[in-house]
Amino acid sequence: MMIVMKEGASQEQVDAIVAKVESVGATAHVSRGELMTVIGAIGDREHVANLELDGYPGVDHVTPITKPYKLASLQFRKGRHSVLDIGGRRIGGEHFMTIAGPCTVESREVMLDTARIVKESGAQLLRGGAYKPRTSPYSFQGLGGEGLRLLQEAKEETGLPIVTELMDARDLEAVAEVADVIQLGARNMQNYTLLTEVGRSGIPVLIKRGLSSTIEELMMAAEYVLKEGNESVILCERGIRTFESAYRFTLDLMAIPVLKEQTHLPVVVDPSHAAGRRDWVLPMSLAAAAAGADGIIVEVHPEPDAAICDGPQQLVAEGFPDYLRQVEAAAALAGKAVPSRV
Amino acid sequence: MMIVMKEGASQEQVDAIVAKVESVGATAHVSRGELMTVIGAIGDREHVANLELDGYPGVDHVTPITKPYKLASLQFRKGRHSVLDIGGRRIGGEHFMTIAGPCTVESREVMLDTARIVKESGAQLLRGGAYKPRTSPYSFQGLGGEGLRLLQEAKEETGLPIVTELMDARDLEAVAEVADVIQLGARNMQNYTLLTEVGRSGIPVLIKRGLSSTIEELMMAAEYVLKEGNESVILCERGIRTFESAYRFTLDLMAIPVLKEQTHLPVVVDPSHAAGRRDWVLPMSLAAAAAGADGIIVEVHPEPDAAICDGPQQLVAEGFPDYLRQVEAAAALAGKAVPSRV
Amino acid sequence: MMIVMKEGASQEQVDAIVAKVESVGATAHVSRGELMTVIGAIGDREHVANLELDGYPGVDHVTPITKPYKLASLQFRKGRHSVLDIGGRRIGGEHFMTIAGPCTVESREVMLDTARIVKESGAQLLRGGAYKPRTSPYSFQGLGGEGLRLLQEAKEETGLPIVTELMDARDLEAVAEVADVIQLGARNMQNYTLLTEVGRSGIPVLIKRGLSSTIEELMMAAEYVLKEGNESVILCERGIRTFESAYRFTLDLMAIPVLKEQTHLPVVVDPSHAAGRRDWVLPMSLAAAAAGADGIIVEVHPEPDAAICDGPQQLVAEGFPDYLRQVEAAAALAGKAVPSRV
Amino acid sequence: MMIVMKEGASQEQVDAIVAKVESVGATAHVSRGELMTVIGAIGDREHVANLELDGYPGVDHVTPITKPYKLASLQFRKGRHSVLDIGGRRIGGEHFMTIAGPCTVESREVMLDTARIVKESGAQLLRGGAYKPRTSPYSFQGLGGEGLRLLQEAKEETGLPIVTELMDARDLEAVAEVADVIQLGARNMQNYTLLTEVGRSGIPVLIKRGLSSTIEELMMAAEYVLKEGNESVILCERGIRTFESAYRFTLDLMAIPVLKEQTHLPVVVDPSHAAGRRDWVLPMSLAAAAAGADGIIVEVHPEPDAAICDGPQQLVAEGFPDYLRQVEAAAALAGKAVPSRV
Repeated sequence: MMIVMKEGASQEQVDAIVAKVESVGATAHVSRGELMTVIGAIGDREHVANLELDGYPGVDHVTPITKPYKLASLQFRKGRHSVLDIGGRRIGGEHFMTIAGPCTVESREVMLDTARIVKESGAQLLRGGAYKPRTSPYSFQGLGGEGLRLLQEAKEETGLPIVTELMDARDLEAVAEVADVIQLGARNMQNYTLLTEVGRSGIPVLIKRGLSSTIEELMMAAEYVLKEGNESVILCERGIRTFESAYRFTLDLMAIPVLKEQTHLPVVVDPSHAAGRRDWVLPMSLAAAAAGADGIIVEVHPEPDAAICDGPQQLVAEGFPDYLRQVEAAAALAGKAVPSRV
Repeated sequence: MMIVMKEGASQEQVDAIVAKVESVGATAHVSRGELMTVIGAIGDREHVANLELDGYPGVDHVTPITKPYKLASLQFRKGRHSVLDIGGRRIGGEHFMTIAGPCTVESREVMLDTARIVKESGAQLLRGGAYKPRTSPYSFQGLGGEGLRLLQEAKEETGLPIVTELMDARDLEAVAEVADVIQLGARNMQNYTLLTEVGRSGIPVLIKRGLSSTIEELMMAAEYVLKEGNESVILCERGIRTFESAYRFTLDLMAIPVLKEQTHLPVVVDPSHAAGRRDWVLPMSLAAAAAGADGIIVEVHPEPDAAICDGPQQLVAEGFPDYLRQVEAAAALAGKAVPSRV
Repeated sequence: MMIVMKEGASQEQVDAIVAKVESVGATAHVSRGELMTVIGAIGDREHVANLELDGYPGVDHVTPITKPYKLASLQFRKGRHSVLDIGGRRIGGEHFMTIAGPCTVESREVMLDTARIVKESGAQLLRGGAYKPRTSPYSFQGLGGEGLRLLQEAKEETGLPIVTELMDARDLEAVAEVADVIQLGARNMQNYTLLTEVGRSGIPVLIKRGLSSTIEELMMAAEYVLKEGNESVILCERGIRTFESAYRFTLDLMAIPVLKEQTHLPVVVDPSHAAGRRDWVLPMSLAAAAAGADGIIVEVHPEPDAAICDGPQQLVAEGFPDYLRQVEAAAALAGKAVPSRV
Repeated sequence: MMIVMKEGASQEQVDAIVAKVESVGATAHVSRGELMTVIGAIGDREHVANLELDGYPGVDHVTPITKPYKLASLQFRKGRHSVLDIGGRRIGGEHFMTIAGPCTVESREVMLDTARIVKESGAQLLRGGAYKPRTSPYSFQGLGGEGLRLLQEAKEETGLPIVTELMDARDLEAVAEVADVIQLGARNMQNYTLLTEVGRSGIPVLIKRGLSSTIEELMMAAEYVLKEGNESVILCERGIRTFESAYRFTLDLMAIPVLKEQTHLPVVVDPSHAAGRRDWVLPMSLAAAAAGADGIIVEVHPEPDAAICDGPQQLVAEGFPDYLRQVEAAAALAGKAVPSRV
């Protein structure tokens, strides 16, 4: 960490910072220039993380020179990107993965019909929400335990591994019985209780970026899981909140190359929620795959206009195989080895 | 809800929307203009909340004409702002409340020293975090149960009611033994599990606005608590995330008059986290009070430079009485009846 | 325009709005519901644009039901996208166009070397800035007239049409002598003087989206040019300002399908300025092309590390032919007919 | 400027940066740590401003350690805030200034009536727009020269100095005949042509912050004017663009203490455009004054409901004297010496 002192900072102020740095066991290197003094604080990441010097008397600003995350960093893996195995399907490195299914588990029929189409089209994982975080307490909140049961049935019938969301640590045991990947939604990206518990469970986790979270904060959320010894973390870009109101969220596709450079963890993109419109899901899926994403998580429904929630953004299941072929062609452009189909 | 159809929308598309509206028990009024057709959907708030028509074929856009919240609305209370009583101290209407204390409970001495100064200065409530949500898993996470015990001791000595944060529903019972007001942090504003549980507890709640949450979403979070029968909700503006990087967060003071117009709930402002700098806390506190806030929640520490976390933004306890007098003068300008002191 | 009145709005307030609507020659349709009243204002776009009723007594909110732009709309062209011809090269519809060149015209050698590589690689247009808008008055401001002269020489040698920026209406004549397309930079997107003058000049225009401008405002900027009778307008997405600081600007690729749905004008993407880093330019270019952009405008330099400005984001000219082939493959995925090369 | 190299950056990469730094006449100080190398570039501000090293091979990131502005800085004036004299009225230091008038000059009667009320209430300057930047080419664009004539008449009758906007450098001469302060609107904050020309004119300038401009960029805009020898610059906060849609723009009042710390220039706040609603103008004006603003620029109209533009946000002239008294009381709280009235 570099601490840049203000022009005219006094010797006492510099000394106070040095003392503060040393109090956490780090070393301070003081460079005195003509105009200003810069102090470098070198030491253990965990100690330095507890130094909060921005705003101290005489301090102009503080700039980190090491990343605040460690286990999530690409350097920690010596530059090699992780490949995760989810029930025999792989993601990361050269492996592109498509995760598809209805927004919410709403009925046995819809769940099983969708699962069959997802399976036949050649997608790798099946998604569906049993617990739904909703802005309004008056909106449908998901089928809960009954939804988990239907996911289990779909899994048994198709053999597809399941991705489903966990919202409450007290449901972890029930969710863990069905889920091959536990999804943490955007609103829970900084729910440290959930991150820690899911880290301890050892079950693969898909973490959605919070709608106002920085890319670095997304990696810090992963760090909470990794720190508990759970190495199977997938990061998901799903749109950030900006001033633009022509769509629901601004899909931040530049996050893909940035994350690829900084972390070894696989990165998937959810185009459905950001678009909010079926028409825009295909172009954004192609864009995500072409930009180098390791996968797509997308909403599909046999009859979206009858869906309980988010109907307009769900792809029509009928067209899904064609959609998938196009997305895989885009992934191939970015160097992914997509499965050959007959 | 008004559904505005695209120019050239077909009769079938209009009929499909009408059918969708009627399927949830609402009534559809179709107005056909020369260029376009507009459909009004009138019905029960809970039913209409489940209608998601944006993006349907032929639909240009959908615009709500009723607010999605009900119990939080000023209209629900017929235009009268709520006055809450917290252990004999009042907030709302003419009553201005100051909540002060250290960022985190870090030691018995700091906690008790601060409590005494807060008490003597005439502030109404004492704050202090036992559980701290931290971006980094390597940062200090709070004293937990030991922190709660110290808060209890400070309460007993000073008689000041306590505000403290809850992060995990499983800690509710322990927190409830000490807290007169349970704080839900910005990262948990949309943690529906916590909102519901705290709603059921009946204990007064202070909800901090999420850093990318709209003012309406803040009211929807309150609605989750109110729906469980807990009427004691305080809303807190603490800064939103924008492109500006000269400070930590953009304090959105216009939220005060907006909330005053739309909800009966009291509104307080936390200037410490947005500023991140002690120097900027006083001007922003004066601004918040002058804009009509019902209170301020502010961080104070006997020796901020030695604080474990957020030292630079904490006011120096010594100067707190003078700070408080100035803030109360600003509140008086906005029509608040602040307590006279001798 | 729909004017939604507040619950409890008085008859006088409704009458006042009706009178206001009629005062501009529009017609008011009043729909009285149980809870609230909605007034539809139907009339000439230009008249209704001058109605500013948001915030009037009794008005809850106002929602437009017609778009504020007309000549830029896809409907105005009956759903057909425009194809522009720039010195024999086409953009729009099936035609994908690559515009490349150095950030700024800095010397004869660099300009001519780059021009040759751009020409040989098969790109369609040559870009280069003679006038540079700079945040700092102490930064290099461009070569001005001398830069225009070098662009002219590059044009003569390669036959490539030229894209260059205009910042001051008083330079229009000089720029018009060289430019086949006049570029208006992001900072000038709402410089109505420039928009109008360039509209009158009849020269094709490339308008960059302002970094906090909505997609609709971008189309309104185009409307200023179209209104003067100049039909050759290209829109350019180049990144918007958000809270994310891992890169320079957030490239808003969802703007592409949104614009394709709403306007007939061609849309290009500038990945260089948003990325700020050469490494990220290729993935974002592929993403833009796969999302359906009509072209790319990108910075190329024979020796970027020696460039006067924005070196790190400029592609190395040597690798440009390979870059271009990949981008064209992505464009082909999105349905573009890219030129075959031997 | 500190250049932080990546872990594992090669000696060649470090040498290349050092060479680049020295090529502009600056000095490079290399500090080699265990994990990484940091290079300090020290030299002339103008030279260093042209170094653009972010994104160079081996560079992790670059962090400025000196401010990019000089003439605008508080240090340049040795910590003393400027006091400007505008036709005998002062702003800055202890002097609080209110600038009021209609949004646009729309008729002789409205202009003169407003001017009289502004004068009688004790405000210091009269504002009114003859040239209006409008998002839509179909909206009223101002009376132009006729508007200037009416401003001249109002000035002669009341003796109030005039603030009016300049949009086109070609109108400078005409505007300069009437204006005591030339206003540059938010859309023109980075119109470097205008900034330079107005700088040369020597006439006092009020620069509105662009809606996505940082506080630092606002100071850089001032630097363009100051560099031409014009020392009379007033900065204006008028709201920034964020995701919140409950009002028009987010008024960034924290900009006030930030600017007070960094620049000697006076800072005023325009609450009218951000609020978009008359009701919210008073609380935000009080907040701005309490936060330490040097003045307010506010819209007033004798009959806002009949105004040609922005009627709903304009204060009713009748209530203006009372409004002004309240704002001055808030300014007094922040230490301003407001004029005593009988």
